[in-house]
Amino acid sequence: MELLKSKILTEGKVLKDDILKVDAFLNHQIDPVLMDAIGKEFASRFAEQPVTKILTIESSGIAPAVMTGLYMNVPVVFARKQKSLTLTDGLLTAQVYSFTKQVNNQIAISSTFISEQDHVLILDDFLANGQAALGLIDLVQQAGATVSGIGIVIEKAFQDGGEKLRDKGFKVESLARIKSLKNKTVDFLDDTREVINE
Amino acid sequence: MELLKSKILTEGKVLKDDILKVDAFLNHQIDPVLMDAIGKEFASRFAEQPVTKILTIESSGIAPAVMTGLYMNVPVVFARKQKSLTLTDGLLTAQVYSFTKQVNNQIAISSTFISEQDHVLILDDFLANGQAALGLIDLVQQAGATVSGIGIVIEKAFQDGGEKLRDKGFKVESLARIKSLKNKTVDFLDDTREVINE
Repeated sequence: MELLKSKILTEGKVLKDDILKVDAFLNHQIDPVLMDAIGKEFASRFAEQPVTKILTIESSGIAPAVMTGLYMNVPVVFARKQKSLTLTDGLLTAQVYSFTKQVNNQIAISSTFISEQDHVLILDDFLANGQAALGLIDLVQQAGATVSGIGIVIEKAFQDGGEKLRDKGFKVESLARIKSLKNKTVDFLDDTREVINE
Repeated sequence: MELLKSKILTEGKVLKDDILKVDAFLNHQIDPVLMDAIGKEFASRFAEQPVTKILTIESSGIAPAVMTGLYMNVPVVFARKQKSLTLTDGLLTAQVYSFTKQVNNQIAISSTFISEQDHVLILDDFLANGQAALGLIDLVQQAGATVSGIGIVIEKAFQDGGEKLRDKGFKVESLARIKSLKNKTVDFLDDTREVINE
């Protein structure tokens, strides 16, 4: 997705060989026009899959997920990283280790909002080691629902999360795939789809 | 805003005399069509104010804020409730006590994204005691920017947050104002504006 790649190149900051900071348009400040384009793109990439719900994780997954939900006309559920007092009935939980923050988070959703009949599109801002995505898959499966696919805004293709998920047979669509962040430079993985579509 | 009030009546749950659970469409599951309508409504209510940025707080403020940002064509910044490793330079912080969760949260934004020239529209999902809004106002003022107004999805008008903010001279626009949650019943405050507009 060219608009996203261009944003990453102009406003992203490579902090380390494995850390890309996109606080300017995704993780702290949010560019609503870009989110709208991302929603449209995910809706197009998963148009062939049955999708009845979108599942993401707070906080940075929410903006792209809601825009996608609007284009696909389905509700969005966001997993919480800690329990809230007003969220008490039937919780489904999974463990997610965050390499960035070096903490183990419990993520949780209410079983009320995902049922056995649901076909769930999982969306997240980043894919690196795949921990968050695997946690979300775990929640969907605990609910007895079906994973329709996994949509990622930025995939660090030099880490093994994408491979893990694709090896398990999931359809993974990443809007920008990064091959390397070495030498403070963002190097994208060539993606035939990009060339065809854009 | 009739669509929102109708959602509250059909899908909201009154847990206690002061707690309304709207996990079905705002705080856990999100209705993107409703968020779109909310964004349009906020954009209309603040059309006369100069607005260059929207500031909200994770997580439930993000969806309505991003939709509003799309209609107003301005970026959204969300304050974080805890520090993140990738968010290190120039933090502005404020303390917010949450009566619901009974904890003191530090909220923070990077000073990079709000400057002295900015006119900031503050948006949040709920207004009760006004603690979150006051914390966000504090952040805007620390940045040397101007508060353009405060937009609230659901105001618990039986608590004093709205009065506090209006007494300070801020333009506060709440899309649903609740007079009482007694007897498990949602009772809305009459709002002349509603009658005129809808």
